[in-house]
Amino acid sequence: MEGKAQVQEAIKIQGEVVRKLKSEKASKEQIDEEVAKLLELKAQLGGDDGKHQFVLKTAKGTRDYNPKQMAIREKVFNTIISCFKRHGAETIDTPVFELKETLTGKYGEDSKLIYDLKDQGGELLSLRYDLTVPFARYLAMNKITNIKRYHIAKVYRRDNPAMTRGRYREFYQCDFDIAGQYDAMIPDAECLKIVHEILSELDLGDFRIKVNDRRILDGMFAVCGVPDDKFRTICSTVDKLDKMPWEDVKKEMVNEKGLSEEAADQIGEYVSMQGGMDLAERLLQDQKMSQSKQACAGLSDIKLLFSYLQLFQVTDKVVFDLSLARGLDYYTGVIYEGVLTQAGVAPVSTEAQNGAPAEESVSVGSVAGGGRYDGLVGMFDPKSRKVPCVGVSIGIERIFSIMEQKAEASAEKVRTTEVQVMVASAQKNLLEERLKLLTELWNAGIKAEVMYKKNPKLLSQLQHCEESGIPLVAILGEQELKDGVVKLRVVATREEVDISRADLIGEIRRRTSEA
Amino acid sequence: MEGKAQVQEAIKIQGEVVRKLKSEKASKEQIDEEVAKLLELKAQLGGDDGKHQFVLKTAKGTRDYNPKQMAIREKVFNTIISCFKRHGAETIDTPVFELKETLTGKYGEDSKLIYDLKDQGGELLSLRYDLTVPFARYLAMNKITNIKRYHIAKVYRRDNPAMTRGRYREFYQCDFDIAGQYDAMIPDAECLKIVHEILSELDLGDFRIKVNDRRILDGMFAVCGVPDDKFRTICSTVDKLDKMPWEDVKKEMVNEKGLSEEAADQIGEYVSMQGGMDLAERLLQDQKMSQSKQACAGLSDIKLLFSYLQLFQVTDKVVFDLSLARGLDYYTGVIYEGVLTQAGVAPVSTEAQNGAPAEESVSVGSVAGGGRYDGLVGMFDPKSRKVPCVGVSIGIERIFSIMEQKAEASAEKVRTTEVQVMVASAQKNLLEERLKLLTELWNAGIKAEVMYKKNPKLLSQLQHCEESGIPLVAILGEQELKDGVVKLRVVATREEVDISRADLIGEIRRRTSEA
Repeated sequence: MEGKAQVQEAIKIQGEVVRKLKSEKASKEQIDEEVAKLLELKAQLGGDDGKHQFVLKTAKGTRDYNPKQMAIREKVFNTIISCFKRHGAETIDTPVFELKETLTGKYGEDSKLIYDLKDQGGELLSLRYDLTVPFARYLAMNKITNIKRYHIAKVYRRDNPAMTRGRYREFYQCDFDIAGQYDAMIPDAECLKIVHEILSELDLGDFRIKVNDRRILDGMFAVCGVPDDKFRTICSTVDKLDKMPWEDVKKEMVNEKGLSEEAADQIGEYVSMQGGMDLAERLLQDQKMSQSKQACAGLSDIKLLFSYLQLFQVTDKVVFDLSLARGLDYYTGVIYEGVLTQAGVAPVSTEAQNGAPAEESVSVGSVAGGGRYDGLVGMFDPKSRKVPCVGVSIGIERIFSIMEQKAEASAEKVRTTEVQVMVASAQKNLLEERLKLLTELWNAGIKAEVMYKKNPKLLSQLQHCEESGIPLVAILGEQELKDGVVKLRVVATREEVDISRADLIGEIRRRTSEA
Repeated sequence: MEGKAQVQEAIKIQGEVVRKLKSEKASKEQIDEEVAKLLELKAQLGGDDGKHQFVLKTAKGTRDYNPKQMAIREKVFNTIISCFKRHGAETIDTPVFELKETLTGKYGEDSKLIYDLKDQGGELLSLRYDLTVPFARYLAMNKITNIKRYHIAKVYRRDNPAMTRGRYREFYQCDFDIAGQYDAMIPDAECLKIVHEILSELDLGDFRIKVNDRRILDGMFAVCGVPDDKFRTICSTVDKLDKMPWEDVKKEMVNEKGLSEEAADQIGEYVSMQGGMDLAERLLQDQKMSQSKQACAGLSDIKLLFSYLQLFQVTDKVVFDLSLARGLDYYTGVIYEGVLTQAGVAPVSTEAQNGAPAEESVSVGSVAGGGRYDGLVGMFDPKSRKVPCVGVSIGIERIFSIMEQKAEASAEKVRTTEVQVMVASAQKNLLEERLKLLTELWNAGIKAEVMYKKNPKLLSQLQHCEESGIPLVAILGEQELKDGVVKLRVVATREEVDISRADLIGEIRRRTSEA
């Protein structure tokens, strides 16, 4: 530990930093971070009682879910899981960490964001970065060549968190993937149908699903004169088009990546194109584009894809968009992204709060993404046997943020328990009788509770019901016990009725079955 | 990388190791581990095609869950969650890692088993070791003084895995805890009721719930002449009684921990005692035990606890057992453990397989445990405000193992999807018609699938249904399309009936609602 005087000096300086940030109205996150440092320094000095003082927080970029948030999360998960099950998916689970080498060489530039575990002897391990690479490892390891599975679990990225915008270091992914050698574009179309169903059912406002194909991008780069070895890096720059205007993207291509101005301009023309099957047809006739075999293969598949999407009745939301690039290395064919387009429900960005133009908050960013990755499983197979795969990942943290805001704004109270009845008493010394009745109810499968007090006040028992939304109270008193009845009170209406002990369970079931 | 010759030499030696283990019929785990080392060495040499060869495995002590295992897991979770909800619990979630200092000083000797993350700049983090400490951190951080919550999540321990016995380094805990200042023993009794309900409903054979109290243990140590500073370490030794005979436990107390033979013998007498409320009453009259105020407080509470357990109708399985100690530091009052006692369903231990007496496999070990920890939240509160807590943790990996064995042994097939109907065709060129009908079904909420082939054979479509337990097939052909009907086939009976297109959804719902 450092000398006391040194620590006190450090506290003084850090205190200044915090004051300065507050006076400059810096972001809450930034202030919180500096306050945490300050508290840590103060903790080094020891508290009043000489005890070590904890910094009471969760790790940077992570959060707890409280019961209300969990209730919302459960609802979102149920919608998503029902959809995955409706489409016949099984589910698997994999460990939260993998051998470090399993993740190596799969994520390109993003590899630096992987969390490594400390070397405590034994294997070198890393926290999973997504669910796709562990899925591919699972397929290769178990020699599985056909499966339709979903996997819902947390993944980990040492990214710059922006928690107000739903960007965390620990976050959920809900993945659905189809592995197997099948006829072209049928599983791919089903993945888009799933995105359509989930975004519709979650009722998050209007949305678009952008579609493109890696082969079209590569073909486009080739015919525009991008050198082969620059495809991936130019692709990363194109990927920034949803955050940056074309002028800046072009600048990056020319100044940073060394592309010719002419090539960049040609790319600029293509990436401004959006449409449907008609656009794919037009580009197949395009003098330049049609020179690339790869592009033509991609364009034919886009046409086929749209024909299936018509049968699935989802073309109203799907756009063939040549600016869609997606960062990850492993995609080999169709790629897509689901984007919410309705302003208002969007998690408000810090920039917008600080007076940026309102349009900024219209683009909410992607809530779903995926594509075809036919080479990934082969990277794990000792004999490089390929298992073609296509899948989609629903990014639900943003969806949670939106649902939370909606719940906040709505008058309806979110219940965090499912208790149907509270067993209460109006008089003293009835704990035993309350526990006996409670046991009867539990044993019959009724969700029930009591207050853990020998002699609780009736008012506080009723108040608890109001607060937590419990619809019924079963009240016991000397008279009720003598008469072999229970007074059943409806919390919402305050109506009370005596029910014989034998009929109570049926009556509670009847009254709570609609709820 | 080492020199090629060196690696080749190492491969030779490692090959010998593996052969030797196999010839000695060593455990599968041990062989797998050495084979992994061998593969790693071979990988260093590079494969035939010069590519890096992966060691295809999950991290030591972890496993994937395949779809069948997930189906069983889902069933177990549903039973447990229904029980927690029946008892009125909310749920929360916390991050998989915590600040390292949050976990420091909570687990005694077990702290060495905590997984640390690598220092990649920023905070020092560790994977959670249990769900109790994060819960206490959550309560202190949010100043919550009353909550009844459950939390189901994975925890991490760098322990020696024994995966055949259901002991992993990554495993689930299902925790239920009640925090708040309440009248004595009411929440404690509810925790035992919950263990009773869950172990009964999971139908794992007979079980016992052992109960004791930290204050009784400490009082017992005091009156037997154990020096104050040896309470915790002698307690750890008592905790080994379920794995070691008394003679060995005594030896450890006397030879390793320096306890007098006389004190050890006195402890030996007490820890052989088992009973119910009557034993608590007898010990309250015990000349020696009654000298300890602490022990008397504990014994009175055990009496009160049993009176509530009678009302909850669970005394048939609960035993007051003075040998129950439990390892963790943070318990302050009642402690308990649920143990399966029926032989046969138990995961067979390696010792038993190697010819040890059959009785060894009777003790299956604990599948649930918990107790009262009134001081833990205060350790996180800057002002040391106490929040009394009591809780229970269901250890479900062993339960999974047993359920898997039961499923293996049973004739009934475990379904891994919920698909109600397969849309099939008997003739060629009907993909579009199949996709149209599929869309109708999905849009009506029916779980349905097709084969992703343009022209699949009818036989292979029917075989897929048999294999994955899909009960119905909706068959389309030229004739059916002309007649506006669908041929609905019941897979089990091979019965076929034509249903008009308009009635199809109702008919599928009707036929699958019982399933």
